[in-house]
Amino acid sequence: MTDFLISKIKQYVEVDDADIDLINELFVKEKYPENTIVLSQGSVCNKLWFISRGLLRFSINVDGDERTFVFRNEGSFTSDIDSLLKKTPSTKSIITIEESELYSITYEKLQLLYKKMKNGERFGRLLVEETFIGAVNHIVSFYSEPPEKRYIKLLDQNKDFIQRIPQYHIASFLGIKPQSLCRIKKRIYKTN
Amino acid sequence: MTDFLISKIKQYVEVDDADIDLINELFVKEKYPENTIVLSQGSVCNKLWFISRGLLRFSINVDGDERTFVFRNEGSFTSDIDSLLKKTPSTKSIITIEESELYSITYEKLQLLYKKMKNGERFGRLLVEETFIGAVNHIVSFYSEPPEKRYIKLLDQNKDFIQRIPQYHIASFLGIKPQSLCRIKKRIYKTN
Repeated sequence: MTDFLISKIKQYVEVDDADIDLINELFVKEKYPENTIVLSQGSVCNKLWFISRGLLRFSINVDGDERTFVFRNEGSFTSDIDSLLKKTPSTKSIITIEESELYSITYEKLQLLYKKMKNGERFGRLLVEETFIGAVNHIVSFYSEPPEKRYIKLLDQNKDFIQRIPQYHIASFLGIKPQSLCRIKKRIYKTN
Repeated sequence: MTDFLISKIKQYVEVDDADIDLINELFVKEKYPENTIVLSQGSVCNKLWFISRGLLRFSINVDGDERTFVFRNEGSFTSDIDSLLKKTPSTKSIITIEESELYSITYEKLQLLYKKMKNGERFGRLLVEETFIGAVNHIVSFYSEPPEKRYIKLLDQNKDFIQRIPQYHIASFLGIKPQSLCRIKKRIYKTN
């Protein structure tokens, strides 16, 4: 059941049979219909999730205006790391775009995984390093690049699932109106 | 010599005698006069530093305008983690405010430390987690809080060394002109 999860953990560290038993014991399968809240802005995030199937988006509610700022697809680990580590209310929501199957591990069990898995601490370090790089890239891109450039990057980096994301979420991600996204797409496809 | 460094590492993990030998072997002492570049924007950051004495600032050059955005004092580990991990050119400079004494470890030796120190991987995880939280807090604060609030927070969180930072660096950190900082200070001291 957790084969996909285990194969992903193996991309970070070596995993033996005892580790696999531990992973099976500590992770719990969760299923969500489409457009369903996994984590609600304002609540403390107490889990790390692995997406075994489906598609999620992260969004922030700014004065009633809901802005999507990250997409995560199957094969990704995801969480609000900041809220998870500090036990403070999350500044964002995590919402399914499609029906999704996730494997979740609570903060407490994650500490157990780090401790008991042969290369648990190393797995944790590599996971946080990767999340850190992703977050920095995202922020730098958001504040320094125009929507058109960010759209091309989004297409480029997310070939596998970009066609599964509704256009209004993509427009929200770019910080523009759907009509402006239409114009950008016309321009791009005319040039290429 | 590295007593301060070792006592700081002990705040993250247990350290035994073999670990101490390793730390002494892998870290190198560096001394910098005041106003000296430790890391230059555009070059790849290949080190993690521990500040045993002194004060540093992080700055970004935006179209010729140099903006300070972080201060780090003695007892802190510091690096451009993003550049260090990805081996990409750093998007910031690290510059001394005062004469400073640092202990540096190269990326390659840091990997050795993670591997060979008893709790090396755990130390690495906790260090990156802490850096992650700091970076997120900083970014959220910068984009969501007015200069006056950020100034009060800066005073509050950096009581130990705030008086050692020249006013023009503080103004730069707040994204305002030195005259505006004067007005903010007058307002604050009048109210209290």
